[in-house]
Parts: sequence; C-alpha cells; structure tokens
Amino acid sequence: MKELPIRIRLEKESGKTLYEQLYEYIREEIRTGSLLPDERLPSARFLSDSLQVSRTTVDMAYGQLVAEGYLTAKPKSGYFVNATEGQYNTGMTAEREKARQVPKEEESAFRYDFSPTAIDMTHFPYATWKKITKNILVDAKSRMFALGEPQGDEELRTTICRYLHGSRGVNCEPAQIVIGAGNDFLLLLLEKLLGRHVPVAMENPTYTRAYRIFRSFAYPISLIPMDEKGICIDRLRESGAQVAYVMPSRQYPTGISMPIGRRMELLGWAAEAEGRYLIEDDYDSEFRYKGRPLPSLQASDSQGRVIYLGTFSKAIAPAIRVSYMVLPYPLLEKYRSECSFISSTVSRIDQTILNEFIRDGYFERYLNKMRKVYRTKHDLLLGEVRGWEKDFAVSGENAGLHILLTDKRGRDEESLVRAAQKADVRVYGMSAFRMTVTGSTEKLTNEVKIAEERKGKNSPATVILGYGSLSETEIREGIERLKKAWR
Amino acid sequence: MKELPIRIRLEKESGKTLYEQLYEYIREEIRTGSLLPDERLPSARFLSDSLQVSRTTVDMAYGQLVAEGYLTAKPKSGYFVNATEGQYNTGMTAEREKARQVPKEEESAFRYDFSPTAIDMTHFPYATWKKITKNILVDAKSRMFALGEPQGDEELRTTICRYLHGSRGVNCEPAQIVIGAGNDFLLLLLEKLLGRHVPVAMENPTYTRAYRIFRSFAYPISLIPMDEKGICIDRLRESGAQVAYVMPSRQYPTGISMPIGRRMELLGWAAEAEGRYLIEDDYDSEFRYKGRPLPSLQASDSQGRVIYLGTFSKAIAPAIRVSYMVLPYPLLEKYRSECSFISSTVSRIDQTILNEFIRDGYFERYLNKMRKVYRTKHDLLLGEVRGWEKDFAVSGENAGLHILLTDKRGRDEESLVRAAQKADVRVYGMSAFRMTVTGSTEKLTNEVKIAEERKGKNSPATVILGYGSLSETEIREGIERLKKAWR
Repeated sequence: MKELPIRIRLEKESGKTLYEQLYEYIREEIRTGSLLPDERLPSARFLSDSLQVSRTTVDMAYGQLVAEGYLTAKPKSGYFVNATEGQYNTGMTAEREKARQVPKEEESAFRYDFSPTAIDMTHFPYATWKKITKNILVDAKSRMFALGEPQGDEELRTTICRYLHGSRGVNCEPAQIVIGAGNDFLLLLLEKLLGRHVPVAMENPTYTRAYRIFRSFAYPISLIPMDEKGICIDRLRESGAQVAYVMPSRQYPTGISMPIGRRMELLGWAAEAEGRYLIEDDYDSEFRYKGRPLPSLQASDSQGRVIYLGTFSKAIAPAIRVSYMVLPYPLLEKYRSECSFISSTVSRIDQTILNEFIRDGYFERYLNKMRKVYRTKHDLLLGEVRGWEKDFAVSGENAGLHILLTDKRGRDEESLVRAAQKADVRVYGMSAFRMTVTGSTEKLTNEVKIAEERKGKNSPATVILGYGSLSETEIREGIERLKKAWR
Repeated sequence: MKELPIRIRLEKESGKTLYEQLYEYIREEIRTGSLLPDERLPSARFLSDSLQVSRTTVDMAYGQLVAEGYLTAKPKSGYFVNATEGQYNTGMTAEREKARQVPKEEESAFRYDFSPTAIDMTHFPYATWKKITKNILVDAKSRMFALGEPQGDEELRTTICRYLHGSRGVNCEPAQIVIGAGNDFLLLLLEKLLGRHVPVAMENPTYTRAYRIFRSFAYPISLIPMDEKGICIDRLRESGAQVAYVMPSRQYPTGISMPIGRRMELLGWAAEAEGRYLIEDDYDSEFRYKGRPLPSLQASDSQGRVIYLGTFSKAIAPAIRVSYMVLPYPLLEKYRSECSFISSTVSRIDQTILNEFIRDGYFERYLNKMRKVYRTKHDLLLGEVRGWEKDFAVSGENAGLHILLTDKRGRDEESLVRAAQKADVRVYGMSAFRMTVTGSTEKLTNEVKIAEERKGKNSPATVILGYGSLSETEIREGIERLKKAWR
C-alpha cells in the first residue's frame, strides 16, 4: 500500500469541497500511474482518520471513483484500482471498439458509377453563393443570430410559395409552408401531425429512404403495385391505407409520370373518406426533356388532401439542408396547436442566403444552366444506347437524371449487374427498390404477399443508369464497356 | 352561354397537348372574368364537335378544372363556373383566413422583461464569425456542398468530444456523438431509439418544451417531485418509469444542483433494470458564479445509462442550430442499425464554421467574456434584492441566468406577477413550469395526483427573475419598480 494519505493536502479554503479535492487527487494518481492496477487503497476509516476529514467525505470520494470505474469495491477487502485505461475499461471494450468506427458513406469503388442519385456540382455558382453570404453577414447583427419562426422565416416562405406556384402550379399561402432541415426531418414532423399507427400506402418499387422512415414510424405499410400510369387505384383502395406516399411527377425509380386521369382517380380516393391524405414527394420535377410537365398533384387538389413535399438538396446542393412542405389547412391547424413549439431546424442565416439566391433570380439561372447540362448528358446517353432495342427496352427517358433498361433476352438482374461490375461499371438493379418486409410486429401478410408478387421472378430484369454526376466522356466510355459486358 | 368555342384556337404543333390548351384557355377566361360565376359552359359533346377534338380531350380539361375548383359539375345540367376567387374559394375560406396568419413569437410588451430564457447577444464576436465563414467559403468547393455524415462531420464531433471532456468531464468517443439541428430534433431521433410508449419520468417543475416533446411522443409521463437535492428517487422508483429526463447540473427552473450523493442514487436507479436510461439535459452548465461545478452526470456513469444532451444555442447564439447528444453504446448500435440513414440536419458549412470557432479558441474566449458579463449582472441583481429577506427567500443564485424569489408573506403568485405587470415589469411565475396533465388517453391518474399535489396551494408563491438580456440599468430600474410594486 502506498503512502497515499501523507501526500494529500486538503485545503478548506480552496473553493473546492474536501470530497472533491480527495476525489481529484486519487483520480490523478490513477491516471498518471502512481497508483497501479489492482493496488489496494487505504480503508475509508484509516484515510478519514489520517486526513482528519469525516468518513462521509472519504466514502463519497471513493463512491464517485467506483462509479466512474477507477476503483472496484470488493466486499470485506476494500477498494482496488482498476486496469490502467481507467474509465475506458469497464467491461464494454469489444462493444465499444466495434462502435468506435463511424461507418462511412460507401464510396464508389467503380471507375464508372451510373448512380441515379448523384448530381453534377461542377456548375454550382459558388462565387454567387459566397457573395450573398458575405453581404448578409455584413449587415447581420443580433437579429440574424436570433431564433426565427418555427415554421421558417416569412420572407423565405413567401419566396418558396411564389416559386412553387410559378413552376409547379402549387396553390398555397406562405402560411401553409413549413421549412425544415431535410425531408427526413419534415417526415418526422409529419408523423406527429398524422398520428400513430396510420396505415400508409407506397408505390412499389419506391424511394428506399422514405420507406425506411415510415418503417421507423411503425406505420403499417402497404406496397401497391403500379401499372404504366402509376399506382393502381384498385389495389390502393383494397389496402385500407389512410395515407399514400406518391411521386406523381416522376415516380422514383420507375420514371413514370402519372397522367391526369390517374391523378384524378387518386384525388378521388383521397376524398372518399375523412382524414385521408396524399403525400406528394415532388423530389425531381426540375428536369424534363420532353413534353410539358404536368403541374403538381397539389395543383389539382381542391379538397385539401395533398401534403406537398419538396427540397433544394437536389436542385441546388445536398449541403443546402432546406426542404419544405405545404400543409393542407386541417393539418396546418394541427401543426399550429401541437407542433409549432418545435424550433426551426434551419438557421436564419441559411434561410436568408437561400431566400436571396432564389428571389434575385440566381436559382432560376442555375436551373436553366443545369437543364442544358443534363439535357446534353441525357441526349448523349440515349444516343449511346440507340441500337440496343433488341436487347433492352428503354424507359423513364423523358425527365430526371436516370433511365431504365429492361432486359428482353430473359437474363436476370444479378448477372447484368455483375457483368457490368466486372467491367468496372456500376449500374443499379431495380430489385433494390422493390420493397419486402421482414421482422415487423405489424400485420403485414398482405404486404408480404404483394411484395413477393412484385419482387417477381416474373417481371423482366431492369437496371437503372443515372448520369447526373458523370462527364460526357465517362458516359461514352461507360456505355462502351457495358456494350461489351452485356453482349 | 358564351360563344366560347369559336374563339379557341387549338394548335396541334404547339408543344402542348390539346387537353392542356383547352384547360388553360378556359382557366384564363375564368381568371380574367370573361367567364362569370355560375355561367354554364358548353356541353362536352358540343365542344368536342365544335373544336373537332375527341370527347376525352374535353372531358379531361373539364375534369381538371373541376378538380381545381374552377368549375362545378352538376349532374344532368352541365358544368358551371365557380365564384370569382376560383380555386381559393372552395368552402374553406374561414378556416383559411384563420390559418393564414402565422402566429408570431410573443414580443414582450413590458418595459422590463426578466425573461429566464433570453440571452445577451451584444458581445457576440460577429466579426470573428464572419471572418471564419468567409475563409471557409473561399476554400469551399463541392466537398463543402456535399451531404456530410448522418451523425455529423468527424472534425466537429471530435472537437465537441474534447470540449465536453475538458469542461464537463464527459467520457465519450467522437463516434458516440450525434449532431442535430436543435434539441427538439435530437429528441425526435431519440424517440426512435428508445421506442414507443416508453414511460418517462420528469422532474416537476421542469422544462416546458421537453415536456411537450415527450407528450407528442405519446409517452406516459410521470411527474416526480423534487426536494432540495433534486428529483426524489423513491418517487421515481414508484413511478415505473423506464427513462428519466433530468437536469442535474442546474435544474430548470428551480436552479437546484444535484449533489453527488443523489446522482449516485439516480445512477443506481438506472442500473437496477435492463433498458433504463437517464437523459441528462446539460443545457446551462457554462455559467456558474459560486463553487466549482460538478462534472456532468455522464462523467459518473460507468454503466452506459446516461444520454447526454447539450446545445450551442444558448452558449453561442440561438441561430446556431447545433445540438449534440452522446449515446451510450447499446443505443449507438441501435442508431447505427435503424436511424443512421436519416440525413444530417446541419449543413457541412455550418458544422465547419462552428468547428473552427471552437477549435481555434474563440468559443472559450467568448465564454470567458460572457461569464464576466453575466456575473456582473448577477451580482448587481443580488445586490439589488439584498434587504428583501423579510419578504422573499432567494434561491438558484449560484449559476445560470435567473434567480428565484419565494414569497414569505403568504401572497399568491398571480398577485405578485400582476402587481409587477402594472409597473410595466414582467416576472415569471413558477406555476407555469409545474406540469399538469389534460386530455390524454394515457393512464395518468398518478401523474395528475402528483401534479395537483405540486401545483400546490400549499407551496409558497415563487417568481423567477431572469437577467440574461437586461442591461445593468434595466436591472436596477426594474428592481426599483418591483420594490414599490411588491411593498
């Protein structure tokens, strides 16, 4: 046993309690290695006598050290120093070691990655963004650093409202718009408005992220098959869903644009029963190469059944964590009474920058630029796959940033994807977007049935080729390789 | 009936479908008032004949106009123009009118507002913040505008980890930290990790916003009374709660700092059963005027039962929408497997600015500055209420940005608050923070019982005086007025 007590000087006037001083002293001794693992400390009684402090003081110090993992108390034999790593070593090492590494976003290991979600950021007007930011910060005083309205600042809501009306025919007031840091957050908020255990219907295949979010809500999910016009209304009706999550402008990943007739049927379904809603995710409406875009579904909604959801992450930059939703009036009321205490997730500075970027026309100019850029890539890609008609049917080519190739020769998806990978090209199989259900506590028999039906050995293999982030040369070379790989 | 069809020129080569042209034409006629409310339109058959288009084209155009609220279809008599406001007028006007106004944050109507949440932003280093922002944007290219890691960027997590270890004794790895845009968002995320219907215990009185969040989770809430050391462990144990939300460093609003003994009991409670957790909201640990601050509760947690929650909104600026939570390993595993697909709510740019602000020592300098500023205000306020001992007991004066005055003369809270208001001074009654439960579907009998017990006619009136945002002159003058008002 070390001559520990002798060296401690406890000072009554130090501003620290005696307990704290003792606790800190011993902790330092352990940390610096002056007290070694498995070494026994003086008994509490002995120490309190030696130091002329109360027994409670010593007990508290030892107690804290035990609680923090520096010491172990062994009944009837005393206090012992734990292994050198101190509090980092309390029996959870393996677990910790595993969790220590934050999983990184998978970086593409392939030379040519036809990712359907990647975008081209080379034309982003960085200089403009910087200029706006700088100007805003010059004027910024405390107002800018204060907490804004929970729904988002009125200026930005008004700007978004105008933009949506002009470009997507959305009919709303700025008061109906709720701004949030990303679609995921807005969906979390929406869960609070829609309520618990709401049966939700989704198109199948669908957007994987949205599916996972609804799963995390523990919403019973019905996966509804699609035909060439989009979601099958009969199947939707059968599903008993109360809310349907749809992408009418350009369904992801099928690229189907829902025609007006089907839209009317869908709105009709929503109007059939109290409390039914359609969540319209208009994620990708900015880029269209053929035909005039239909306005949003919300534009045709006279009954207040559409929750319109959009984001600037795709049209501007992923780092711009600004999404918005347009709430129909009944839900807006509910938001006001139950959720508007939740603080805005977007800083006023960021809202102001974005507002000026849109309001002053930079956004439109950038969109126009990107429409040309993507159109060039789109035309190039379509040109490159011309002549593949015998092997593949091309679809989804009128809009967005990806096309779909559906096999005509009876090959399976996996072999197509693998053959591409061998040629250092990544393409994406449709089956990843066809949802199945596993390990849920909900009654999902119907869901599973439908999922399996759709997972389909029956339906021909489809692969997805995104071209947003690829250069023209990369598209050309990538397709050249695919041509050989899939010969 | 108007000579409508004659004037329409449908062009097959216009790039718009015939349906679209027809739809747009009629819509314009209605919008501009060429077609008047209640006017009947030509029958679909007549119109298709006159225009030499298919019946479907006309039906679709009419259908869309009905759906958008421009027309009403009356069975067997035809289509009629709706009232002039078109789609803005579909029977929801009153509701819309009401919802149109976004409720503004209540601005203080009082000359002297002793708000316990307001902070002093006059010393914020705006110039530094701007400089950092500018430098970051100079280097920023696409990397900065890309989407970062869902948990937050590693640099910032590492910086926060160091800061928390140094200032609060928090023991964690950067991998355990999840960054989010505000505590509210992090609590929404936490709900997904903790699960549904988790019985949660809160101190009473407590932080109103957290209470509302837990209510929105539909968690059964037990409100646990406090004694002078904080939450009563016996009552906590009786409550059957699985999770307890606590503020050990400085309970809001009581200002109670939980001593080490009670902390050990609390950690003991958490360790008693599988799946129990303590949410430590360390919202206000930066400002302390007397005595050395105890380290965080998390620092004493050897069992991985504490979820540590903190924010920069208070210590830096409300607009800095950056909060963080430290997850114990079992919850971290769950986060990884179930929630890490949820995108980060804080942009990389904002994360980078904050990281440099802390890493390069500006944050510490600012905190030191603010400690002095608040200490001066604190000492002044305490000096001003010296001599009030006969009327009030002062508490919560060792830390934070508010003190509490508890009446000794049997006056009730409302009369104290009102008397202050008559003198144009706003003070805050404690009862607003004592929670009661109304209109819930949960079994809350015990909760109501406790709430009523605490709402207490028995306990003496307590008012809260915050001084964070008031100038020294305002504090002096405000107290002068209170002195007269409460004579």
